[in-house]
Amino acid sequence: MGNRGSIVRLVCGLVCILAPFTAWAAGGQGAGGHASPVILLLLELVVILLAAKLGGDVMVRMRQPEVLGELLIGIVLGNLILLGIPTFSFLRQDEMLAVLSELGVVLLLFEVGLHTTLPDMMKVGVSALLVAILGVIAPFFLGWGVSSFFSPESDRLVHVYLGATLTATSVGITARVLTDLHRLHTSEAKIILGAAVIDDVLGLMVLAAVGGVIAAAEMGTAVNVGAVAGVLGRSLGFLIIVVGVGRLLMPGYFRLMVRLHSQGVLLVSSLVLCFGLAYLAGVVGLAPIVGAFTAGLILEPHHYQDLAAKHQHTSLEELLAPLVTIMVPIFFVTMGARVTLEDFTRVELLGFAASLTIAAIIGKQICGLGVREPGLDRIAVGLGMIPRGEVGLIFASIGASMMLHGKPLIDSATYGAVVIMVVLTTLVTPPLITWRFRKLGATTAHVTDG
Amino acid sequence: MGNRGSIVRLVCGLVCILAPFTAWAAGGQGAGGHASPVILLLLELVVILLAAKLGGDVMVRMRQPEVLGELLIGIVLGNLILLGIPTFSFLRQDEMLAVLSELGVVLLLFEVGLHTTLPDMMKVGVSALLVAILGVIAPFFLGWGVSSFFSPESDRLVHVYLGATLTATSVGITARVLTDLHRLHTSEAKIILGAAVIDDVLGLMVLAAVGGVIAAAEMGTAVNVGAVAGVLGRSLGFLIIVVGVGRLLMPGYFRLMVRLHSQGVLLVSSLVLCFGLAYLAGVVGLAPIVGAFTAGLILEPHHYQDLAAKHQHTSLEELLAPLVTIMVPIFFVTMGARVTLEDFTRVELLGFAASLTIAAIIGKQICGLGVREPGLDRIAVGLGMIPRGEVGLIFASIGASMMLHGKPLIDSATYGAVVIMVVLTTLVTPPLITWRFRKLGATTAHVTDG
Repeated sequence: MGNRGSIVRLVCGLVCILAPFTAWAAGGQGAGGHASPVILLLLELVVILLAAKLGGDVMVRMRQPEVLGELLIGIVLGNLILLGIPTFSFLRQDEMLAVLSELGVVLLLFEVGLHTTLPDMMKVGVSALLVAILGVIAPFFLGWGVSSFFSPESDRLVHVYLGATLTATSVGITARVLTDLHRLHTSEAKIILGAAVIDDVLGLMVLAAVGGVIAAAEMGTAVNVGAVAGVLGRSLGFLIIVVGVGRLLMPGYFRLMVRLHSQGVLLVSSLVLCFGLAYLAGVVGLAPIVGAFTAGLILEPHHYQDLAAKHQHTSLEELLAPLVTIMVPIFFVTMGARVTLEDFTRVELLGFAASLTIAAIIGKQICGLGVREPGLDRIAVGLGMIPRGEVGLIFASIGASMMLHGKPLIDSATYGAVVIMVVLTTLVTPPLITWRFRKLGATTAHVTDG
Repeated sequence: MGNRGSIVRLVCGLVCILAPFTAWAAGGQGAGGHASPVILLLLELVVILLAAKLGGDVMVRMRQPEVLGELLIGIVLGNLILLGIPTFSFLRQDEMLAVLSELGVVLLLFEVGLHTTLPDMMKVGVSALLVAILGVIAPFFLGWGVSSFFSPESDRLVHVYLGATLTATSVGITARVLTDLHRLHTSEAKIILGAAVIDDVLGLMVLAAVGGVIAAAEMGTAVNVGAVAGVLGRSLGFLIIVVGVGRLLMPGYFRLMVRLHSQGVLLVSSLVLCFGLAYLAGVVGLAPIVGAFTAGLILEPHHYQDLAAKHQHTSLEELLAPLVTIMVPIFFVTMGARVTLEDFTRVELLGFAASLTIAAIIGKQICGLGVREPGLDRIAVGLGMIPRGEVGLIFASIGASMMLHGKPLIDSATYGAVVIMVVLTTLVTPPLITWRFRKLGATTAHVTDG
């Protein structure tokens, strides 16, 4: 089987087959009685699912995690518009797909949380906390330094804000790579996941604090310490209440649910928990995936064993797998498609972007020093913390909308450099983690290779 | 366990708990860095899933199919706005939920199609065809008669159009009830499903023909026979090509898919088929669910046995079940929520609406006479064809947008009566089918009670 040209053949094939159909669907509706927005979405899902499996297939043959293939094929399809082929621009623009993709990553983190127990997590809690704190401090000052070097004329607050955008960790990619590699059970994986959750809280605080300082500077008032403390209080409160109290409520919740005579109650009651906590996390300002992860974390098999026995299910993971299979690739393919390769052609940015990327990577390598347990691999932990993903972009776009002395805090060039940094940190992570965990796997006995 | 008040307690509880949160989410976003449209959707899914399981639970205790509970709780929640509680109006308005619910019914019909084989279907093909044809002719003339009786002053074309709106069959409800009752394998079920597919083709033709006649009358031109023939050609062509040629392509399709090394290929390749044919059905003007059903119909276990063996899956149905569990209730709860109880208070309409409903029910009972096989239950088949669902509403709203002599073809009063007819035919079907199939089940040996 010749696999080298698979991606090329796939892309050409998809374009040739689909271009006329999408044109027909977009223009030719209304002849029948059933025109509806779902019709185009059906086609889009077909494209995404096929593309994801083909991209994943190529990467598996190259002994890389599937998610890298999903990202790369997304980048290819999303950027075909540069060659005058707009067939796949829905991957960037469709609001519906964007929401489905977010549901996908919520399900992914819930599944990852289910594979992790709270006691396991507590065991590495100190390390996770130190990794998270170092992982905020180191990139912050490195980013500040890079910014002052490349634009010494800018206000100091610009450097501070750019430092802040480097602090975020986007755990989706790492979680997926560890899942693809069957390495979720390692202590390194648990430290990464725990640190990423804490990092989201710290990132919120940094954003609130820096934003407060900038707003105060702009308006000439004092910093609103109460507002910053409020953000901290709400997000920490959420985590403490969920992990502390929520866990105690699980047996009662499932005792109520087991009384329901309807079908599929095990899956529904778990997803209600997942979606409910993801929603609450969003309400307090955390990422919904943090809520979904904690939902998985506090949910243990013994909570729902009666429910599973009643409905003759072996495990919740088995019920979730089909949902994850379908929804998660939507997230990674559209994430890839949103990469704008045009940004990489702005030569004047490349030095700045490269330095920012190196600062981002080194900053998270330093955080590996927070690992306290002897024998654990600090490099693996540091690599897992590298991706900035959408969190860095959200920081940057908030910065672009803030004004300082009549100019946007993050100007278009800086924003472009941040985009390049986000793309590079996202793409280097899967091969790096794969390399490092494979190396570890070769020296430890308990790891199974999938 | 006191179950009588469950629905009431549930509704009150949901309102009290959720009202402050939805207000918070709608107004209070933007404090954190993660505001996104997915956050509200998460809450909406929590509400829908909980409501569906609680509604289903009450119905199971009353020995009724769960789907009736989902519809009823949807009606309750959607109409709480009449009591000044707008908390649940998202069930009617959220475009995203509407699309998810359509994906849900697509998955349902795919699953139903998987339970049916093409040879089984062919065995009852003549009956299905006769049932479908009678099921169009009888309601058409009955509807025409009711319309001329209640508004003798209207143009004859109005009567013709109203007759046409009674011809449609919405198979989603019946398919779901038969699934809930574990009766999909009966010959009666197969006749109903086959007739519903043919009915969708006939309904398209009737709509095109009547629409063409009205447009010609309005513009004073001749009827465009070519356009009507085109609708027929495209939709019949789709079915013939899919069932005739598509089936032959299945082994090759799965031979290609089995070469992919990515995970979840069995589920993905089946859903690609389902979504792809649902999309193509939509493009030719048929309902997407007709495409999804035919996808399930042509797909047989021996096509994908190599793929299932490779990935250690026992059956495709098992992989689909979690998706169906989560997605299908969204369809029925939102369908219930879209019922506007205000329409039932327009006393002047009730006589017209009641007559229309009776015509709709009797018309589909007559079609039971098309069943040729001795020993089969004609009443069960006729009952299964009763629901008009969204198809009748689509016909009526197209009529409302057509002008005849400067007035809308379907005026607001007639539209209200059609809405009432659709609601009543939808709600009477689950208990009637349950009653009839239970009665049949008691006299035949091969039926298992779930």
